[in-house]
Amino acid sequence: MLSFVNDYSEGAHPAVLQRLIDTNMEHLPGYGKDRYCSSAAQKIARACGCPQAQVYFMAGGTQTNQVVTSCLLKSYQGVVAADTGHVNVHEAGAIEAVGHKVLTIRGEQGKIRAEDLDAYLEGFYADGNHEQMVFPGMVYISHPTEYGTLYTRQELEDLSQTCREYKIPLYLDGARLGYGLVAPGTDVDLTDIARLCDVFYIGGTKVGALCGEAVVFPRGNAPEHFSTMIKRRGALLAKGRLLGVQFDALFTDDLYSRISRNAIQTAAMIKKALREKGYQIVMDSPTNQTFVRLDDERMEELSKQVAFDFWERSDATHTVIRLATSWATTVEDTQALINLL
Amino acid sequence: MLSFVNDYSEGAHPAVLQRLIDTNMEHLPGYGKDRYCSSAAQKIARACGCPQAQVYFMAGGTQTNQVVTSCLLKSYQGVVAADTGHVNVHEAGAIEAVGHKVLTIRGEQGKIRAEDLDAYLEGFYADGNHEQMVFPGMVYISHPTEYGTLYTRQELEDLSQTCREYKIPLYLDGARLGYGLVAPGTDVDLTDIARLCDVFYIGGTKVGALCGEAVVFPRGNAPEHFSTMIKRRGALLAKGRLLGVQFDALFTDDLYSRISRNAIQTAAMIKKALREKGYQIVMDSPTNQTFVRLDDERMEELSKQVAFDFWERSDATHTVIRLATSWATTVEDTQALINLL
Amino acid sequence: MLSFVNDYSEGAHPAVLQRLIDTNMEHLPGYGKDRYCSSAAQKIARACGCPQAQVYFMAGGTQTNQVVTSCLLKSYQGVVAADTGHVNVHEAGAIEAVGHKVLTIRGEQGKIRAEDLDAYLEGFYADGNHEQMVFPGMVYISHPTEYGTLYTRQELEDLSQTCREYKIPLYLDGARLGYGLVAPGTDVDLTDIARLCDVFYIGGTKVGALCGEAVVFPRGNAPEHFSTMIKRRGALLAKGRLLGVQFDALFTDDLYSRISRNAIQTAAMIKKALREKGYQIVMDSPTNQTFVRLDDERMEELSKQVAFDFWERSDATHTVIRLATSWATTVEDTQALINLL
Amino acid sequence: MLSFVNDYSEGAHPAVLQRLIDTNMEHLPGYGKDRYCSSAAQKIARACGCPQAQVYFMAGGTQTNQVVTSCLLKSYQGVVAADTGHVNVHEAGAIEAVGHKVLTIRGEQGKIRAEDLDAYLEGFYADGNHEQMVFPGMVYISHPTEYGTLYTRQELEDLSQTCREYKIPLYLDGARLGYGLVAPGTDVDLTDIARLCDVFYIGGTKVGALCGEAVVFPRGNAPEHFSTMIKRRGALLAKGRLLGVQFDALFTDDLYSRISRNAIQTAAMIKKALREKGYQIVMDSPTNQTFVRLDDERMEELSKQVAFDFWERSDATHTVIRLATSWATTVEDTQALINLL
Repeated sequence: MLSFVNDYSEGAHPAVLQRLIDTNMEHLPGYGKDRYCSSAAQKIARACGCPQAQVYFMAGGTQTNQVVTSCLLKSYQGVVAADTGHVNVHEAGAIEAVGHKVLTIRGEQGKIRAEDLDAYLEGFYADGNHEQMVFPGMVYISHPTEYGTLYTRQELEDLSQTCREYKIPLYLDGARLGYGLVAPGTDVDLTDIARLCDVFYIGGTKVGALCGEAVVFPRGNAPEHFSTMIKRRGALLAKGRLLGVQFDALFTDDLYSRISRNAIQTAAMIKKALREKGYQIVMDSPTNQTFVRLDDERMEELSKQVAFDFWERSDATHTVIRLATSWATTVEDTQALINLL
Repeated sequence: MLSFVNDYSEGAHPAVLQRLIDTNMEHLPGYGKDRYCSSAAQKIARACGCPQAQVYFMAGGTQTNQVVTSCLLKSYQGVVAADTGHVNVHEAGAIEAVGHKVLTIRGEQGKIRAEDLDAYLEGFYADGNHEQMVFPGMVYISHPTEYGTLYTRQELEDLSQTCREYKIPLYLDGARLGYGLVAPGTDVDLTDIARLCDVFYIGGTKVGALCGEAVVFPRGNAPEHFSTMIKRRGALLAKGRLLGVQFDALFTDDLYSRISRNAIQTAAMIKKALREKGYQIVMDSPTNQTFVRLDDERMEELSKQVAFDFWERSDATHTVIRLATSWATTVEDTQALINLL
Repeated sequence: MLSFVNDYSEGAHPAVLQRLIDTNMEHLPGYGKDRYCSSAAQKIARACGCPQAQVYFMAGGTQTNQVVTSCLLKSYQGVVAADTGHVNVHEAGAIEAVGHKVLTIRGEQGKIRAEDLDAYLEGFYADGNHEQMVFPGMVYISHPTEYGTLYTRQELEDLSQTCREYKIPLYLDGARLGYGLVAPGTDVDLTDIARLCDVFYIGGTKVGALCGEAVVFPRGNAPEHFSTMIKRRGALLAKGRLLGVQFDALFTDDLYSRISRNAIQTAAMIKKALREKGYQIVMDSPTNQTFVRLDDERMEELSKQVAFDFWERSDATHTVIRLATSWATTVEDTQALINLL
Repeated sequence: MLSFVNDYSEGAHPAVLQRLIDTNMEHLPGYGKDRYCSSAAQKIARACGCPQAQVYFMAGGTQTNQVVTSCLLKSYQGVVAADTGHVNVHEAGAIEAVGHKVLTIRGEQGKIRAEDLDAYLEGFYADGNHEQMVFPGMVYISHPTEYGTLYTRQELEDLSQTCREYKIPLYLDGARLGYGLVAPGTDVDLTDIARLCDVFYIGGTKVGALCGEAVVFPRGNAPEHFSTMIKRRGALLAKGRLLGVQFDALFTDDLYSRISRNAIQTAAMIKKALREKGYQIVMDSPTNQTFVRLDDERMEELSKQVAFDFWERSDATHTVIRLATSWATTVEDTQALINLL
């Protein structure tokens, strides 16, 4: 059975795992105060071009979104997101669980447009009733989005400028950030993100780690006592080394980018083959996710040999499926998939 | 200055105030355990045709929606509402503040259609990912809606049936219930609501009381320790008598309906005059709210002599305003308004 | 049946009620933006000797404690209170419901001593583990306390100084403040409280109002968008006038003090009689609550003619009861009680 | 530098790490639906003697306590714990963060006595005011406790019986459960815990895993949609395999007990040496934690060669320190420590 079902089907990248093995018996302090957490934070800060960056590690994406959101928002504020945003749809209400509303605006292939954001914010303050409404207190975007799409640098500049005009932070969910940074045609790099966002996270779980996300406050702008707030949400690992060691490995010798490229290359092979064979690709995703529309019979047949993700019903006889690659996808498996298509 | 700005501009109906005066120096137990709360509850139960009904009193609508929602929902559930629903838009995030998401579906003039609800619920359970989504755990409707519109009995029957199929309670926000019950053409009475909803509240603040809403669990289905949950939300008045006495007065000799009729009659005078004079009424509201589209110049002029509510911009040169009547609106003021139109 | 069961058994003081009657049919804006709320706020600010004071009104004490606490604390902080404090024991977990811990220190007859507070705060920061503990973020005291006792001015000075050293606000719950301000022997007046506390509330429910408490931020130090936060907790009355009119009456011609004195005078009559007749008064309460230890037989007998509050079992054959007076207690009833003792 | 500072200073036990290595490249479903989670659950159920047990995995102890507590309690309830309980003191308010109060009763060397619990529960319901108080809704104990002490089987029987009389669940925090199960003199085994508790967790983080705790509902009594509730708290790992594989290893060939014994044996060596050398051991802890009282000079000297945990000041010139062993402590290091003492 070939597996293209998602990008978290395997364990850790071998080089990451090796570092866990190598450091396993070292005595280290707990709760993120070990030398690997420090080292990883420094390497990430350097990669971001932000020497004053503060970096914290948490185990998963929903947890990270929950903690960051609850720390950035004031009680009367909510987070603005695309209606398709992960925080709005697929986190079981983790934002609401900590008391905040997700304020949705129309997404386009998963992205928020600065002009839509601007119109929303202007409209909010123009409403005479807004004192009895949830105030927009931050903006959530994902890059790549849930649909594998990417913002351009100009689009991020525009969103950032709008946020700064309204004095609300811009937060970027980078669960799959590695795959976005090395995608063909992107003009956005990590220093752009660090410059334009107020806080963001670099995803590990889907990009080579067993678990773990690195939250970056690029200008030393972490809230006071952020560790205590992480603890209060049950998100502070006793063995913080587990996260520190992995991110230290991922940000050594550019491993994070190198392993991300594998996902892009195998996805590119798939996209090319699909186009050549006349399949309908339904989203313009340059990253590791490929969305294809199939008739149900074809899908049924394919599912006998390939694990993929059901995405959504398209019409009575067609379905959109997702084929995901990752750092772990082999060229052999990719070729086998192409042969089946 | 004529006042048609809302339905909570005055104090209490004189007969309600009189009862507060008459009972003022009686020694009564606190926290809703006084004889007036009991008597009011019995009268309301009788009016609902539900001898086993349990009735609780709270001070305001947002508070009531917050307490009821938090008591009915399980932690992993949210409340389904029209996108225009009061709980979604104008309660400053009171539902999210207690940990729950408002799951919106398209409203039509403030109303939810049973087929839209059914499609939403069916779609939810069909989604393979729904275990990581917020489960629909109750349905919120308002009657009259925020737009002054009303459900028909058949529409309520359909909504109720859908809710029962999916085993989720139907909750009706009756902030302006009195005005809905006596509106021309409605076929919905209090016994229908009690029969078709699992919980609802009868609004006092906007219908003759100084403050107060009466929550009804028509089949003795209040959650255990509901009073403690009210207290925990800061919503239990020490002098519960304030609410009991008022509702006892409102449900004596059908006062609640009688004073509601005044709002309908004065609103009908306004609607008739507007139609005759060629104004554009933008919502088919049979209750105490009238929504009119005016050119901005006309609006400006009118605003010098009449207090009304700005509703929304219609286009570059027109605005929709709201004219609200209430139990307190006089025929003289109404006639004066008509003369100005 | 004589009633000394509590200080919220009757409605409003006649002069307060009269103002509600007089203003009942005025058209006024909602949500606390009416002229009576403004006027009451100004009168309270003047009484506090704080022209820049900001004053907000809410319906009840638990609600007020909940809203204020949740607005003053950061997410990683809790509120320090005496173990016997109302917020710790008798509010059904309203503080925890909004996410915060009540950090208790030993109370003495309901009061916190500055040296105990200081020792607690010093110990907290000395603990190497405090980053994984709840930070003390404000101090809650009540005056009078739940036991009817009062702080001296020096005690308040000391508490205030400790709070300022640690940069945490001092909050005073004045549910029965009127009775404290006019108690014999007190050297604390409203200007002291305004000077020494960062926020406090002046109780209305137990001192002449139907409902209502006035929250005072004496140095214009209310949190931004405090009204929205009140709304979000369901605590913003549409007819805010109900609270404004009552407090405007209470702070006209010193009514608040005058009616409080009645409670003190009748309580003094009771205390004197108890002492003369050899009863054991168990708390040194100079305010409107009197705590007496009775053998159970005597208590049983008394309960046939007097409503009082059971306070606690003292030993196998004795019980402590509470006799409460208020603005509404008559000299006749007090004399009748004394005759029964 | 010798390390006896805590029991989470190293990575994973080599056999656990090996299983992560061996399974690393397997394609597995996410979110705990993989075969290792199932296998681990079955092995744990068998070890508990409860074939119907449901087992869920989370990353850390505070998280587990937070999720379990929030799922078991009704909104008006709190959790009863010893005043020294981890949930009360060292979790940064994680229980309050999800809306619940920790109701403390006096602990004795970290343990709750059934008679104290019974007195507390009886007193609660006897209090006429209890409807305005937080209801006791579950009982939290730790085994071993925060002080390394253990319940006897009879003590657990008694606590369990009291809980059942009052119909509230008994929850056991087993962060260091392994060390308790193999301690000399204990008569409590895993089947006793499964029989007497309603839910408990088996600690991995401190007993051989990189991270992870296994929550057991021994009688198939997990709340409905528990996975969704885990997700909502940000506690559901995408790569649930990380936890499943580790617990599968820990519960294969009794590894969990075997590695726990090492901690007990090395701790026993230390305790014996301390006694022989006349040190004052301050807690009767039969598990992996040893609490010793030292004069400050001695402590200072020792700290140059040994990492240990400062526990508390004893008096002006003495301090209590903690020496912790674990699965990773070597006999060589232990002997070196003894030589230094």
